[in-house]
Amino acid sequence: MVSSSPSSLSPPEVPMELHSTNRKKLLDSLRRHLTESSRPLHGFVFLQGGEEQTRYCTDHLELFRQESYFAYLFGVIEPGFYGAIDIATGNSILFAPRLPADYAVWMGEIKPVSYFQERYEVSMVYYTDEIVEVLLDQYNGSGKPLLFLLYGLNTDSNNFSKPATFEGMEKFQTDLTTLHPILTECRVFKSEMELALIQFANDISSEAHVEVMRKARVGMKEYQSESMFMHHTYMYGGCRHCSYTCICATGENSAVLHYGHAAAPNDRTLEDGDMALFDMGAEYHFYGSDITCSFPVNGKFTSDQSLIYNAVLEAHNAVISTMKPGVSWIDMHKLAEKIILQSLKEGGILIGDVDEMMVARLGAVFMPHGLGHFLGIDTHDPGGYPKGLERPKEPGLKSLRTIRELQEGMVITVEPGCYIIDALSVPAMDNANTSKFFNDQIIGRFKNFGGVRIESDVVVTANGSRNMTKVPREISEIEAVMAGAPWPLSKASNY
Amino acid sequence: MVSSSPSSLSPPEVPMELHSTNRKKLLDSLRRHLTESSRPLHGFVFLQGGEEQTRYCTDHLELFRQESYFAYLFGVIEPGFYGAIDIATGNSILFAPRLPADYAVWMGEIKPVSYFQERYEVSMVYYTDEIVEVLLDQYNGSGKPLLFLLYGLNTDSNNFSKPATFEGMEKFQTDLTTLHPILTECRVFKSEMELALIQFANDISSEAHVEVMRKARVGMKEYQSESMFMHHTYMYGGCRHCSYTCICATGENSAVLHYGHAAAPNDRTLEDGDMALFDMGAEYHFYGSDITCSFPVNGKFTSDQSLIYNAVLEAHNAVISTMKPGVSWIDMHKLAEKIILQSLKEGGILIGDVDEMMVARLGAVFMPHGLGHFLGIDTHDPGGYPKGLERPKEPGLKSLRTIRELQEGMVITVEPGCYIIDALSVPAMDNANTSKFFNDQIIGRFKNFGGVRIESDVVVTANGSRNMTKVPREISEIEAVMAGAPWPLSKASNY
Repeated sequence: MVSSSPSSLSPPEVPMELHSTNRKKLLDSLRRHLTESSRPLHGFVFLQGGEEQTRYCTDHLELFRQESYFAYLFGVIEPGFYGAIDIATGNSILFAPRLPADYAVWMGEIKPVSYFQERYEVSMVYYTDEIVEVLLDQYNGSGKPLLFLLYGLNTDSNNFSKPATFEGMEKFQTDLTTLHPILTECRVFKSEMELALIQFANDISSEAHVEVMRKARVGMKEYQSESMFMHHTYMYGGCRHCSYTCICATGENSAVLHYGHAAAPNDRTLEDGDMALFDMGAEYHFYGSDITCSFPVNGKFTSDQSLIYNAVLEAHNAVISTMKPGVSWIDMHKLAEKIILQSLKEGGILIGDVDEMMVARLGAVFMPHGLGHFLGIDTHDPGGYPKGLERPKEPGLKSLRTIRELQEGMVITVEPGCYIIDALSVPAMDNANTSKFFNDQIIGRFKNFGGVRIESDVVVTANGSRNMTKVPREISEIEAVMAGAPWPLSKASNY
Repeated sequence: MVSSSPSSLSPPEVPMELHSTNRKKLLDSLRRHLTESSRPLHGFVFLQGGEEQTRYCTDHLELFRQESYFAYLFGVIEPGFYGAIDIATGNSILFAPRLPADYAVWMGEIKPVSYFQERYEVSMVYYTDEIVEVLLDQYNGSGKPLLFLLYGLNTDSNNFSKPATFEGMEKFQTDLTTLHPILTECRVFKSEMELALIQFANDISSEAHVEVMRKARVGMKEYQSESMFMHHTYMYGGCRHCSYTCICATGENSAVLHYGHAAAPNDRTLEDGDMALFDMGAEYHFYGSDITCSFPVNGKFTSDQSLIYNAVLEAHNAVISTMKPGVSWIDMHKLAEKIILQSLKEGGILIGDVDEMMVARLGAVFMPHGLGHFLGIDTHDPGGYPKGLERPKEPGLKSLRTIRELQEGMVITVEPGCYIIDALSVPAMDNANTSKFFNDQIIGRFKNFGGVRIESDVVVTANGSRNMTKVPREISEIEAVMAGAPWPLSKASNY
């Protein structure tokens, strides 16, 4: 390996058993549901994979990334596929696009269906122009075969998934309501093989965060950190995609929660005295990571920076050590809020009774986003609000992407933050209900502070939780690593 | 700057005069056309900018990149804009989206219209909900104002550009046919300011190619070269986008013309004896580069590799030195073909008369793609086939993205290649018309050779052409640079 920034990691093999296990889980769950509803165990789960997209009217092809539900069940990296699972037999069937002869010249070898059958370990593979024939042939029930199509609400985007369409669909009955909630619920609970991939995405991303932290210097551009992160995770981890656009916010920008997009493109220069808030995560074989590190760009925390940082770190650590099956995520959000408010009070920024602050929802002024979200094949993995669960209306709580009770196998981000956001703090200081809590003498000092977020990816275990993210978190660790100490710190470290 | 791979470059300032010059050019051209057609000099050029897209049903936002025609006229990096040019006055008007208050919390500062007016140097800026009111107010003609909308064929993708739509459109007349060919023709001829950006994209990409070449080692993965290229151009050049997905093909893959996409994802291991064909280019402020280097991954050309490489290099150099205004691009394609066939004959791979090979279109067996294409805001910049110009039907020639006569200010890629592609060479060896040209004794040696492409970006000048790409091209240069020589080579170099 050739580089100045070696890595202890290399991309792991991905067992296709991961996806057959996912299919088995869906099949079991769907069959159970059908049996309970006294419906026949017949028909097919039927999904359409993603298609390649061009940029506007041009022939510029965007780099294809498989649709997430399709990726979950089949693991197929190529565009233009369909997939079916026979509910009666459990057989899995992939339908590959029949490529034109000149594909071989321009795009690469035209692989036979046997290649895909072997690679993806499915029962059979046909071409997409054979869907009708194959499904009718495989079907042993009476009447038109029933296709369970994927159609349902994504509660983060408010978009609906697009059910499969193909020529000859009129030869089938379709069910648009059964599959989505059941498949979504399967995705909420991660298998050991899924956890291994999320762990690898965390390992390589953690290492890249440390690399970025070490190389941060006053005078650099924010996007140079983004470039270093993406390079490290691709070069050493084989991660071609990030889970989301890197947020490389410094100074005031660190109070912009989703900084880094095209209209706020990580283009500020790092200045002495800035805090950096770097929220970056790589994706490996569809499974993601989502990690935020906050640190002073010059490598040394000021006392004000320590105050805010430790408030957030205490919340982060308290939540993780409290997490276990049965714990309510709303309670965890409130726990984080309360610890942050308490710390701000101890630091002299806030005045008064913390319980009263909680009632006034003051926590949402400093942390307007939710404490965390499910993580998996999507960064905001679905399943946060299954049917019957209503999104809260209160400030802060309404931003929660789930309010479920924790259960074993859930992977969820723990990402408390504390930000000085003019658009929120100015009205709160003017508001009769909340103005009394602010210490005007001190809050002004933090006007251009920006914010701190600390985000780890945590899996809920049988008795508690396990933090999958491995980055320096204590101030002493961050300062040591930024000064050149190895990570993890050795016990004999002199830093 | 912190890195083991320093750069002599830094991202240049971009003058917004570039875009006002583009608008002026369009306005002059459109007014001339209207005058010649005895139509009134009234109405508005009216374009809709691009919108941010989410991935499938999720809230995963794809990194936004402006639509190219809109970028050409206005240079706006943010999504959700509209833009108008008043044909009567020449005034330019941008319409910005009116952002909700909580944008400030999640996405960043809500900028006033004055910010955009100053940044983009337009006559006025309003909100998109004011389009109807503003245009009606600005209009001094009689009847419904006429909007010249952008609708026309992209001859590379066969897609049509999507004309602007907005609420209240019925208050206007629309013209869907006039604007597209005129604006497209403006884009064909680059201004000095445009050339400066294409030159920077070339400079940083050239430097990155050299970096990649130097770090290539047997045992690496192809995608590690992609990662190094993207890192170098972003880290030191501020290039967040590449012009296209990197093609990092080695060994047999180098015969796959558009390798590197999701279904052929640069995942092969570099082997001793492989040729690499790396086609990679960065984009800076919308303007792109498109560069291919071919070299042996172990740093030393074999005699077979030299034979094919020099055949292509000779074609590349001959074309560039022949290019000048008035020269036909088809002739350049044929010149490249002929030189390659001649070299293959001299190398003993082909037998017989080269002119006869040309008549049999044998060149297309070894170079099935066109010699080159316009380059600008799109990698395949539009304008290759204006109305009246018919695409040829013959093998090879039919792949040409333009067949125009060269004119001053055109930027076009010169990318001859020579590939051993089974899907083409096997049928050609079986075909009665072409089998006689093949020396069966030798061609077998090249079966798994892959291919060589050499691609530079060239601007047509008043008297000739200028190569904007600055990478090692001679075998001696490549071997020296890969052995550690500085680039450009110093005259006293001992390598």
